[in-house]
Amino acid sequence: MNLLLIDQEDFVSPGKIVISGRRFLQLKNVIKPVCGDTLRTGICNGNTGKATVLEMNEDSAVLSVELDTSPLPPSQVTLICALQRPLTVKKILHGALTMGVKKIHFIHAAKVEKSYWQASILKENELDHEIRLALEQCGDTVYPEFEYHTRFKPFAEDVLPELVKNSALAIFGHPRAELPVPPPPAHGRILIAAGPEGGFNDFENDALEHAGMTPVTLGKRVLRSEYAVTALLAKYL
Amino acid sequence: MNLLLIDQEDFVSPGKIVISGRRFLQLKNVIKPVCGDTLRTGICNGNTGKATVLEMNEDSAVLSVELDTSPLPPSQVTLICALQRPLTVKKILHGALTMGVKKIHFIHAAKVEKSYWQASILKENELDHEIRLALEQCGDTVYPEFEYHTRFKPFAEDVLPELVKNSALAIFGHPRAELPVPPPPAHGRILIAAGPEGGFNDFENDALEHAGMTPVTLGKRVLRSEYAVTALLAKYL
Repeated sequence: MNLLLIDQEDFVSPGKIVISGRRFLQLKNVIKPVCGDTLRTGICNGNTGKATVLEMNEDSAVLSVELDTSPLPPSQVTLICALQRPLTVKKILHGALTMGVKKIHFIHAAKVEKSYWQASILKENELDHEIRLALEQCGDTVYPEFEYHTRFKPFAEDVLPELVKNSALAIFGHPRAELPVPPPPAHGRILIAAGPEGGFNDFENDALEHAGMTPVTLGKRVLRSEYAVTALLAKYL
Repeated sequence: MNLLLIDQEDFVSPGKIVISGRRFLQLKNVIKPVCGDTLRTGICNGNTGKATVLEMNEDSAVLSVELDTSPLPPSQVTLICALQRPLTVKKILHGALTMGVKKIHFIHAAKVEKSYWQASILKENELDHEIRLALEQCGDTVYPEFEYHTRFKPFAEDVLPELVKNSALAIFGHPRAELPVPPPPAHGRILIAAGPEGGFNDFENDALEHAGMTPVTLGKRVLRSEYAVTALLAKYL
């Protein structure tokens, strides 16, 4: 936890918060502050700053907070990601969120198992937990937005062209592409699509190209999805 | 498994192999080939090519192999990695090996728990298993080399200067560095050092700089070790 992520509900009076539950346990067992110590903090979707420990109690901590700094600027990347098995989604999500991605479209594809759409990682509670862990890790406060497209064709035909139009660069990983990942554009958004384990099929590759996306390669070695997404995003860090 | 990694011991006659155990189960349960199907294959530390399924038996498969293609060229990166908790080592290792890194120095640092040096992931059997999984994933055959440096100071003073001298670029991730990760040099090796969770301490940062390494940053967001290493390596893919 590199940032204590707080909410309006944590305030007991102006500039004073009480923390309990998971964040308190993390504080008590990992960070182990004593009274007077300061921590980096930030309020959900708002400023960051510092928190000073006033009291460490049995099951809660009292801290004073000063939130005087704007949150980190977001990544310019919009990520389109074929849905994966839940553990892989968790890893991709953590990587993308800690690299500042604020907009993710999860899409269906031929090689995506239908059951993945029922995974608990996509349910509000578990998703929220993963988002908070990622924001706490990277020192950010701004929640990402998600869109879910459970059918590939309507996404590729009706949604994707508009996303491409609003991007200065639009690429997707393709195992037989020859073009290496291009350098970041001087300004404008970057659209990156990542296929399922096993890749997009020919129809899907054609549809992505037809919508204006450029196939690129990370090299001859085949990376597992979560490493491929992290590597693609890293090119635009 | 994107490549069936075979050994001399698998040959029963010239050009003919019998596969059992883990690789056979992967074949039978995941790839599910029928007789006549071909797979990408490669021999440990040697050529790649194709294998044709001749027989799928109860607990083994017979394949003919043709190994006519040189293995993929290795990455130019030498990775220096502070030892981490075993699960993190496993993730870093998989990322580095699937990105073609062939030389890894695991080093001690102040924030490395001494117990990590006893982890089973560093023992021959488990390490070999992880290496094989990574080579099978990325389609490579060439084993990496490891060196272990259980004391930081002798490494930094006696080993590191020579590694830096043999590199065209030598960088390490530093949370307060201002310099972004530089582009790859036109030729020559690249030396990358990654700290433990929590980072190198001041003494260690100074020692790395003193040996000729340049501190660089991946941005203001703090990434978990495995994502940071993957991101650094991705810059030189």
